[in-house]
Amino acid sequence: MDNKVYIFDTTLRDGEQVPGCRLNTQQKLTIAKALEELGVDIIEAGFPVSSPGDFEAVSLLAKEIKRPTICGLTRAVQKDIEVAAEALQYAARPRIHTGLGTSDQHVFTKLKMTREQVIEHGVRAVKLAKKYVEDVEFYAEDAGRTDNEYLAQVVEAMIAAGATVVNIPDTTGYCIPEEYGKKIKYLRDNVKNIDKAIISTHCHNDLGMATANSITGVQNGARQIECTINGIGERAGNTSLEEVVMAMKKHNWLDYQTGIQTEKLHSLSNLVSTTMHMPVQPNKAIVGSNAFSHSSGIHQDGVIKNRDNYEIIAPEEVGVSASSIVLTARSGRAALHYKLKGLGFDLETEILNAAYQEFLNMADRISIIENEHLHQLMESMKVKS
Amino acid sequence: MDNKVYIFDTTLRDGEQVPGCRLNTQQKLTIAKALEELGVDIIEAGFPVSSPGDFEAVSLLAKEIKRPTICGLTRAVQKDIEVAAEALQYAARPRIHTGLGTSDQHVFTKLKMTREQVIEHGVRAVKLAKKYVEDVEFYAEDAGRTDNEYLAQVVEAMIAAGATVVNIPDTTGYCIPEEYGKKIKYLRDNVKNIDKAIISTHCHNDLGMATANSITGVQNGARQIECTINGIGERAGNTSLEEVVMAMKKHNWLDYQTGIQTEKLHSLSNLVSTTMHMPVQPNKAIVGSNAFSHSSGIHQDGVIKNRDNYEIIAPEEVGVSASSIVLTARSGRAALHYKLKGLGFDLETEILNAAYQEFLNMADRISIIENEHLHQLMESMKVKS
Repeated sequence: MDNKVYIFDTTLRDGEQVPGCRLNTQQKLTIAKALEELGVDIIEAGFPVSSPGDFEAVSLLAKEIKRPTICGLTRAVQKDIEVAAEALQYAARPRIHTGLGTSDQHVFTKLKMTREQVIEHGVRAVKLAKKYVEDVEFYAEDAGRTDNEYLAQVVEAMIAAGATVVNIPDTTGYCIPEEYGKKIKYLRDNVKNIDKAIISTHCHNDLGMATANSITGVQNGARQIECTINGIGERAGNTSLEEVVMAMKKHNWLDYQTGIQTEKLHSLSNLVSTTMHMPVQPNKAIVGSNAFSHSSGIHQDGVIKNRDNYEIIAPEEVGVSASSIVLTARSGRAALHYKLKGLGFDLETEILNAAYQEFLNMADRISIIENEHLHQLMESMKVKS
Repeated sequence: MDNKVYIFDTTLRDGEQVPGCRLNTQQKLTIAKALEELGVDIIEAGFPVSSPGDFEAVSLLAKEIKRPTICGLTRAVQKDIEVAAEALQYAARPRIHTGLGTSDQHVFTKLKMTREQVIEHGVRAVKLAKKYVEDVEFYAEDAGRTDNEYLAQVVEAMIAAGATVVNIPDTTGYCIPEEYGKKIKYLRDNVKNIDKAIISTHCHNDLGMATANSITGVQNGARQIECTINGIGERAGNTSLEEVVMAMKKHNWLDYQTGIQTEKLHSLSNLVSTTMHMPVQPNKAIVGSNAFSHSSGIHQDGVIKNRDNYEIIAPEEVGVSASSIVLTARSGRAALHYKLKGLGFDLETEILNAAYQEFLNMADRISIIENEHLHQLMESMKVKS
């Protein structure tokens, strides 16, 4: 099995549908160009039938973005597929993404169909899409809660109908890695035409498991990950692109390759956050403002000695200029010494110890000790640089 | 093996050491009381030797908080342990948490010791702590990158010295669930006195895996999870308390129990976020402002029919008043109909279809359609409620 893992970005579709994230066509194009430069393989550009504005945006991206595949979302509904085909008509590499629910909850409560009818609907949709494009992806909505035996029947029928990619979404973010991994393995082991298609993960983060589920999916045979920049998306969001990419890069014994230029991750995260009005929390993995800042005395001392002690990612690998040492009441002598040295004060041990006691009293009052506070401290102790 | 999983909250230690998160003693007490009401089993109250303010805070919590165990962090250093013991002297259930690095990176580069010296240091620290308190937890710092065979020797020696809990931190947030799970299993299978102690997980989120690693740890034999509210902590933060607790609750086939009153999670998240100045991103699992909001037409339609279609957690289970349907250009007729009905407009299909076209044009211009926009829309169409 090939170890290339395709990165399918759905920031412009699953991310953009979130309240407040709405983009105009030019903004979508700006982000799409940045995604192309980042090196994603597939851009899900929108849901063309959903509104005139989204149709226009998908059409424009199909014309302007040439290297990645441009994908449009549809329901397993004739009109959706026809409209998507029209929006994608000028794409160099068009893909139609169609599907419907397969869990008992979706089949019986939402769709009010039989399991057989769901398969018939899906097959019809895949065959219709196939008239317009070669590359058709099928999603088995709520696959995370779908019985594996039935899911295997669905997947087999869709591949037989022409699906090139089969997407196994954990739509409600329910799975833990063990179950999601077993699900993908079950499909690899039990769908006889599975080698004719790529299995895709599409995980939601309702229980904080999206990244781990995606990686476990790949370990069990998936070769496409659907994800978004900053993990934005419906409810608690989708799998974070930056997390899965860096998890694979940092575990090179897994031997998976992506085409992502990781040093562009930080600036793209900023672009998406500001354009889509979705703040990134300071403690967000990879792209949060604190992701490379070290605070406790033990950690600061360790990082000053050798940053590999507490850093598994070099900040520049993801486009951050430097890891930071921030002085607080939890900092130790080593960090104080390091920071003072940077300001031109190289203290002897005895004076450093005295300065450290003063520093702690100061830091118990003031939350973060900045350079100006250090200058005041040195002045009060009559130390010259 | 008992299925009770102890929740060890370190918001006030690993969370509080983050730049900007510094709390004064009264604020620490307020959060500690809320953690007690939430039902956590252990509160790590601080690192007493680190500053006079932190010593005072740990002392106060030890006096005031009676149900949970109160824990103080130390290095494997005599003074740290003596100071922690002093801070904890009035605690009903005191615990000293001590330890040092065990990975090659920490042993040889940071500590510049031999592996044998690390064990000697650790044993001395555990024995010293044991003179003051019965409940001693040992952390094998950077256990995530520690060779399992050596880690097993360390753990066995610490339990023999009196450790009641052995903490296996993934200090740098490096592991994926498969490796972290295997590590815990290795310890259960190879440490001959392992039944005399509780194995604890302490995972960091640098690759977005903290929640999954903690749960996988429990599946392999750990029975304590160290975590923080909102996942705050060093760099990309710690395991989110709310995520691990809800993951176990939603997977009742795993049959793990915690004492957490989940309906208090949302208000505690707000308290920590505002008091510690750490914003929670909208797409944060469980406690983000969008965690229960449904945006796309497909999802909104599904939730209006039956919320189990797209919700695995009822909002009130975590203290959120209701799931929300927000109208955007990605909403469908069903959501528009539902919202208009709530405003007193119950439209016939034909008028609804016309209104929907107008709504889409409006939503392509305005990001989020509020009730006032719907009233304007109805007025422009001359529809009366």
